[in-house]
Amino acid sequence: MADTSRRPGRPRDTSIDERALTAARELLAEQGFEATTIQAVAVRSGVHASAIYRRWSSRIELIEDAAFPMESPLQVDPTGDLREDLRRFILAYTATFSDPATRAAAGPLLAYRRSDAGRDAAYQRVSVRPQFFAILEAAPPGTVDPTVDPHDVFDMLLGAVWTRIVVPITDSRPDPVERTVEMIVRMLRP
Amino acid sequence: MADTSRRPGRPRDTSIDERALTAARELLAEQGFEATTIQAVAVRSGVHASAIYRRWSSRIELIEDAAFPMESPLQVDPTGDLREDLRRFILAYTATFSDPATRAAAGPLLAYRRSDAGRDAAYQRVSVRPQFFAILEAAPPGTVDPTVDPHDVFDMLLGAVWTRIVVPITDSRPDPVERTVEMIVRMLRP
Repeated sequence: MADTSRRPGRPRDTSIDERALTAARELLAEQGFEATTIQAVAVRSGVHASAIYRRWSSRIELIEDAAFPMESPLQVDPTGDLREDLRRFILAYTATFSDPATRAAAGPLLAYRRSDAGRDAAYQRVSVRPQFFAILEAAPPGTVDPTVDPHDVFDMLLGAVWTRIVVPITDSRPDPVERTVEMIVRMLRP
Repeated sequence: MADTSRRPGRPRDTSIDERALTAARELLAEQGFEATTIQAVAVRSGVHASAIYRRWSSRIELIEDAAFPMESPLQVDPTGDLREDLRRFILAYTATFSDPATRAAAGPLLAYRRSDAGRDAAYQRVSVRPQFFAILEAAPPGTVDPTVDPHDVFDMLLGAVWTRIVVPITDSRPDPVERTVEMIVRMLRP
């Protein structure tokens, strides 16, 4: 969230914030990341561009707040039950990125943040990778091979989730989440 | 390929075929599957719709020929070396579906064929699943757990390939193909 607490002037008008954020979400969903400019948000929301710039210093920050309003894209506290944690993670991941605005923003925001050193907090905001790693760390001894690269396993899981969301090509069979959990457990085992 | 061998009349004009196929590929790449109608192909190619219908009985068959000109989308003859076969499979799969027309047509064609019983040959034309299964069958004893569902492993591989093609979100790290091969081997092992 853009920090405006130290700025002087009138109290923050939350309805203006909400109008800009809603317009940004609509533009992301309908026209994509590149089309979601401050000017386009201003036109659609009826909020003047200068008012938008008072709240967000760039369109990237506005898009980040619009598409990822929470500090973390999903909250899955590990229980130590690997299968159950993976199941909850996959469901939360799928639900979050089924939102068209979130989906449209995620890739471009990560690409932007990658080329911008030291933005770990922003990465935390968009990426679900840290939550996945927390689940592996909480797993019982003997279930996760220490020689396996958790990034590689996460990339496979990301592929499974994104394919179901964006590519209507996989055969639909029962229990897709259970099947994915089983595959992830097989990759992880020593 | 549409069978026109038993039809009477003038010899087949291959330049007309080529113009229609090229127009269909361009439309698929630029405007997607739904916009690729016989009428749109006729307008773009300058080939009359009736001439297109003489060669293809429906737009589905025209799109199939345009996006999948071969009998199989990729040819990977298994050698019995599981890692090497997977490596070649992934490279061929990625190359084939990096073509925008092929990519645009694959999902919709599979969705169409799924709801159309007995179209195994057409499925063979679009899906790379059978080639993956052939690789598993050729693998040395002890490398593939007979209790693992090969469809589930293929779905994970499909996710990894499609994510790299269509979703610019994965961190780019070295040797993505080797990493994917390693994950697939881990899923398969008993």
